[in-house]
Amino acid sequence: MSSKRVINFNPGPAALPLEVLQQAQAEMLDYKGTGMSVMEISHRSKEFEAIVSETQTDLRELLGIPANYKILFLQGGASLQFAMVPMNFRPAGASADYIVIGTWSKKAFKEAGKLGPTKAAANLEADKFNHLPAQSDLILEPQAAYLHFTSNETIHGVEYFTEPVPPAGVPLICDASSDFISRPVDVSKYAMLYAGAQKNAGPAGVVIGIIREDLLEKVPVNLPNLLDYK
Amino acid sequence: MSSKRVINFNPGPAALPLEVLQQAQAEMLDYKGTGMSVMEISHRSKEFEAIVSETQTDLRELLGIPANYKILFLQGGASLQFAMVPMNFRPAGASADYIVIGTWSKKAFKEAGKLGPTKAAANLEADKFNHLPAQSDLILEPQAAYLHFTSNETIHGVEYFTEPVPPAGVPLICDASSDFISRPVDVSKYAMLYAGAQKNAGPAGVVIGIIREDLLEKVPVNLPNLLDYK
Repeated sequence: MSSKRVINFNPGPAALPLEVLQQAQAEMLDYKGTGMSVMEISHRSKEFEAIVSETQTDLRELLGIPANYKILFLQGGASLQFAMVPMNFRPAGASADYIVIGTWSKKAFKEAGKLGPTKAAANLEADKFNHLPAQSDLILEPQAAYLHFTSNETIHGVEYFTEPVPPAGVPLICDASSDFISRPVDVSKYAMLYAGAQKNAGPAGVVIGIIREDLLEKVPVNLPNLLDYK
Repeated sequence: MSSKRVINFNPGPAALPLEVLQQAQAEMLDYKGTGMSVMEISHRSKEFEAIVSETQTDLRELLGIPANYKILFLQGGASLQFAMVPMNFRPAGASADYIVIGTWSKKAFKEAGKLGPTKAAANLEADKFNHLPAQSDLILEPQAAYLHFTSNETIHGVEYFTEPVPPAGVPLICDASSDFISRPVDVSKYAMLYAGAQKNAGPAGVVIGIIREDLLEKVPVNLPNLLDYK
């Protein structure tokens, strides 16, 4: 063990477990007898497919993800999901509801607004984002394409411990980037959960998307391939 | 040196230099005395900014990239650029020209077609992509937003050694994913060059974009942040 490892209180990427770094270090020149680094093997190789499959299986077990949810590993940070969520799940003509409780949910709301009709179910900016809205204070659209919320706002220090409740039939979508896998959640309450990996799950650059399968049937045709959750 | 390193003829990701892997291995637990892995340091830290800055400087020197070109490190593979190029550089109402000489240029052409007016300056599919079109055979639109070509088609084995010539004033944009930095090119002939790093420049997951600054002035407002080259 390196004697130089520091304690990381950085608000950005979190520390990775030492044994994970040590395993990555040991396998850097030869991943499991392939004679190649993991960075050199094909994404179509059985070794790489095993990494993806094992990670999905472990995450499914850890978070209790039901069988009717797909687990995706994506790029572009949570910030790209701010655009992809409305591109995929807000059909033409429909509006989406956003609960705006801090910097990150404000960004998600703004990005969705660039691409189509978007309403704030609550916007706490006038109160300097110093508390969460009560469920009874949410202005919810019964026909909304979805209700989006941010489970934890790192900058403003407000966190949802129980989910806001959307109208019946309205999918609940959550940016859980900063508290993902920090505690159990009932995934079945969500239509989609997404999280940048860098806080609790892995290095920066990977985003985890957990999507209920029926939601994928609503994705419009002809999205650019890399922006299409299907 | 590991005795197990293999010779990699994979058509996917290429081998990385052994000394690069060895350096990454040595620094895995403690990047340059920070006490953290490079995967744990903030993208806003001076150490990470130095990595980006040094990589840009080295690439600028290696490829002779003029000062009026920006160098971007992007995600989503060349495939996401297939969508971002028309989103950023084809203004509303304009059409873009594509030279279709194999699987990858066909994908680029198709993605651009999902998003707006797109014309094939040449399409060699009927000839099974077995040769390049002559400059005189290109059907070029003098008012095109840009002319896009793929410098090397890995699957069909055709490669441009000299660039196709667009009409005066039409920007030339190139997907150089599979022959990037394999030989000198005159960057000043291009408005934009992009390449997935995994063949010749680095691990899969990073895309390098080299963009002439005046082109960035044409980017429409209100693109999603992560899809906006500016």
